[in-house]
Amino acid sequence: MLKGFTVPRSPLGTAALTPPPPWHYTGDVLAVEFWNDPDVSADILPRGVRLDARHWGRSVALFVDCQFTASNGEYLDPARYQSREFIVLLDATWQGLRIAWCPYAYADNDAAIMRGWIQGYPKKFGVVHQTRTFAAAGAASALLAKNSKLAACMSAHGQLLAEARVILSERTDGLVGLLDRPVVARRYFPRLSAGMHDKPVVDELVRCKIDDLLLTNLWVGEGELIFPEAHGEELDMLGPIRVGRGFRFSFSCSVSSREVLADLTV
Amino acid sequence: MLKGFTVPRSPLGTAALTPPPPWHYTGDVLAVEFWNDPDVSADILPRGVRLDARHWGRSVALFVDCQFTASNGEYLDPARYQSREFIVLLDATWQGLRIAWCPYAYADNDAAIMRGWIQGYPKKFGVVHQTRTFAAAGAASALLAKNSKLAACMSAHGQLLAEARVILSERTDGLVGLLDRPVVARRYFPRLSAGMHDKPVVDELVRCKIDDLLLTNLWVGEGELIFPEAHGEELDMLGPIRVGRGFRFSFSCSVSSREVLADLTV
Amino acid sequence: MLKGFTVPRSPLGTAALTPPPPWHYTGDVLAVEFWNDPDVSADILPRGVRLDARHWGRSVALFVDCQFTASNGEYLDPARYQSREFIVLLDATWQGLRIAWCPYAYADNDAAIMRGWIQGYPKKFGVVHQTRTFAAAGAASALLAKNSKLAACMSAHGQLLAEARVILSERTDGLVGLLDRPVVARRYFPRLSAGMHDKPVVDELVRCKIDDLLLTNLWVGEGELIFPEAHGEELDMLGPIRVGRGFRFSFSCSVSSREVLADLTV
Amino acid sequence: MLKGFTVPRSPLGTAALTPPPPWHYTGDVLAVEFWNDPDVSADILPRGVRLDARHWGRSVALFVDCQFTASNGEYLDPARYQSREFIVLLDATWQGLRIAWCPYAYADNDAAIMRGWIQGYPKKFGVVHQTRTFAAAGAASALLAKNSKLAACMSAHGQLLAEARVILSERTDGLVGLLDRPVVARRYFPRLSAGMHDKPVVDELVRCKIDDLLLTNLWVGEGELIFPEAHGEELDMLGPIRVGRGFRFSFSCSVSSREVLADLTV
Repeated sequence: MLKGFTVPRSPLGTAALTPPPPWHYTGDVLAVEFWNDPDVSADILPRGVRLDARHWGRSVALFVDCQFTASNGEYLDPARYQSREFIVLLDATWQGLRIAWCPYAYADNDAAIMRGWIQGYPKKFGVVHQTRTFAAAGAASALLAKNSKLAACMSAHGQLLAEARVILSERTDGLVGLLDRPVVARRYFPRLSAGMHDKPVVDELVRCKIDDLLLTNLWVGEGELIFPEAHGEELDMLGPIRVGRGFRFSFSCSVSSREVLADLTV
Repeated sequence: MLKGFTVPRSPLGTAALTPPPPWHYTGDVLAVEFWNDPDVSADILPRGVRLDARHWGRSVALFVDCQFTASNGEYLDPARYQSREFIVLLDATWQGLRIAWCPYAYADNDAAIMRGWIQGYPKKFGVVHQTRTFAAAGAASALLAKNSKLAACMSAHGQLLAEARVILSERTDGLVGLLDRPVVARRYFPRLSAGMHDKPVVDELVRCKIDDLLLTNLWVGEGELIFPEAHGEELDMLGPIRVGRGFRFSFSCSVSSREVLADLTV
Repeated sequence: MLKGFTVPRSPLGTAALTPPPPWHYTGDVLAVEFWNDPDVSADILPRGVRLDARHWGRSVALFVDCQFTASNGEYLDPARYQSREFIVLLDATWQGLRIAWCPYAYADNDAAIMRGWIQGYPKKFGVVHQTRTFAAAGAASALLAKNSKLAACMSAHGQLLAEARVILSERTDGLVGLLDRPVVARRYFPRLSAGMHDKPVVDELVRCKIDDLLLTNLWVGEGELIFPEAHGEELDMLGPIRVGRGFRFSFSCSVSSREVLADLTV
Repeated sequence: MLKGFTVPRSPLGTAALTPPPPWHYTGDVLAVEFWNDPDVSADILPRGVRLDARHWGRSVALFVDCQFTASNGEYLDPARYQSREFIVLLDATWQGLRIAWCPYAYADNDAAIMRGWIQGYPKKFGVVHQTRTFAAAGAASALLAKNSKLAACMSAHGQLLAEARVILSERTDGLVGLLDRPVVARRYFPRLSAGMHDKPVVDELVRCKIDDLLLTNLWVGEGELIFPEAHGEELDMLGPIRVGRGFRFSFSCSVSSREVLADLTV
């Protein structure tokens, strides 16, 4: 009897790329709010999802440094269960509901990529770095304080895809416009059978349910963000026409299911 | 209108992890034949697949150094479309048909991992190396010749998972027992919905159709192979109880579809 | 006029592997105290350095997650100026002075390796991970608290070389036996000229001067540590015959010079 | 008694980053000839080295995929002793001798970087890829033939630094202008002592002696080459103002010593 939530399924179930939910995350995030060109970004939405008319083209780019665990102390296997990720969320609507649509996501770890696909995040392999803040004060410490600077970058296959910088101005308890909408993504798995390459076996619009989301040490400031052009990528087409606030915060949350909003195969 | 054979689907379709089939491969392979303990390996087979009674526990471990292209010159993007892979194939049967069952596979590249999952290969991220042979003779060249030695290894998340060595003895035109059976694998994609974690949305036994398989520069010799124990992995449970021949060859092939043998969700 | 503290020297001096000192570091450290076999470890000392007779074989293994800056905001280039490092320090004496001798060190970054060699740390490339602690509480957060568990590992070229685990028991303000001795290392650069391969051009016993060392958030507890055997490495010969306390702390410090204790070329 | 040609010196001498010479190399090279702006490139030469007046600004960029061995079967440790490298050679003169000056070099492996520094190549960590050619014909094989296309790229810390493409036109037996000059480089190792940061302990102009150089399977064709701008790098300042021929060949050679041309510390 083979076991495992994902491939490879195996006699003990420990070889699987990721253990079954609930999945618990914690991490530090550097994020920048930006506006893309709505004439371009409207083309990145699946059927039924529309740009949010009240926030034409508003988006957030998040650089995430995170640690994962399921129910068996996975956080004690740091080589396998830490990841650094990059994700773009676009203000959109679905059937009148204000949502955050995820067109692109990157992670530096196979388990994180697999968990992403299962949730609907279209993850590719990317190398993500962000300036970290450390408890011991010093010239290299980048403490959370007024006028502190932090930077982040993301590259894939040796090409720089995103670069951000934030200058902190003040600590705050919560913010409108930051992770305050349900994230909607698309689970998609193609068929390989002859003649069926454009008939995916799974094509679902899903709402990613994020439980127990906790944001802490939240700072806001001024952001900078660029998406350099790169071959084999289209992130740059969402390139900022205007950049807004920058954010730095710590978070924790859990994921154990998702809700199917629509089956796009029909 | 979003395009792309896989996620991320995008306006131009160039951001997708992998272009649509046909997929063309070429590469060099170091392989070692071995026998595992059938009492153990019988547990690694899905419903309907059985160990081949005429070759109890016979398997082949392949270390592959390969280049990929689809129809748009992808081989000219070597940072993205080369990969090094490791795969185990186990002599088995399905409804009386002699097949090669793939319980474990690793690759060092996100596009290769994605193409693997679409075909049914249960790929995880692994770092794979093999001694290469170069055209210019010299002490480091490892030419294909009698008594030449070549080695290979595979590791994941910093743990050594497989190590092989081959001493070449003679060139040959073809071999019984090497890639002469259809490969059968399992396409599997889980549901994340509450209560459905053990009800995958895709669970198919598939025959991987490999077109135009060409083997060349085939050498046979003596093999060595070990699978060290590692946490979070079960490859070592297939550990050799006996090791047979070693092989070194170059290959090319194409993949454009697969045949569904059985829907395991029902 | 070429500029740069190290190679490559260039017109602007910005291509050099590392900017000139002062160098500032900050980071988080997981460390485990252990005892090796003095009959073995005595062989790892250069001329003039002896095991500390009052602490036969006592050593500390440190897993470091750190951020670097010089004087030009280098911490805002996180892809280049963060590193994860592993270092072993052995209780020793030099001319009666109690010192910490560094026989082995690993880092995951070329600039960190270069700075290491310049200071005398014999750094090789290694991949280092440690369980991190994050500000937002949650199942994955590994907070600094009684009974929290943290783990660390180091591998090089796909082989696991060190693995540690610490269970925290109490917070403390300072500790005897942890970074309270001057670190002594050996700057060594060989000659390639014919007949001179064993006559290094640089071979100095140096005291690494560490300025403004600040330790904070220091926790002590129980440690576990192993050094698995690996080919091409000798770290395992220092393998623990006994393991002592585990530590977790944050630090910052600066480095701008070193003191030459002895010229070993003469 | 500690052993080892380089750090870390150890009881058995097997932990050293690289075994002692002679060092044997073999590999495949994609190379492109180009001209940089002599007004700029003149600034990249050390004292005593001049641009070659007969070839103002002529240079070659080489992307190398190579295997190494010393005298103990190191090529059977492919995870450690293969490397992919990038090197620029600039037509220059030293005391009237026509030389190839090496201002920049990158490699993806710590042992290769160390061997580089010992020889005088100013290596940094870089990720290098080139289209490979495989023995089995097929759409992905990139055979050595008229009109075949091959590409190469190099990146460091997530930034693309060099990109090349070659279209082969004909096979040839040897070429003027390709590796037909002695390579001259600079061994340089700084002091860290206070007040001595600009007084290197080693600063030698050296001639890299390359023994038994064998070039084979040499093809020539048309080249393309760009050096994108990147922070923390100055390679782009050598950016092509004109691009010439492209080359693809296999090579083997040995290195066991170097000749000191000048001591630049005096």
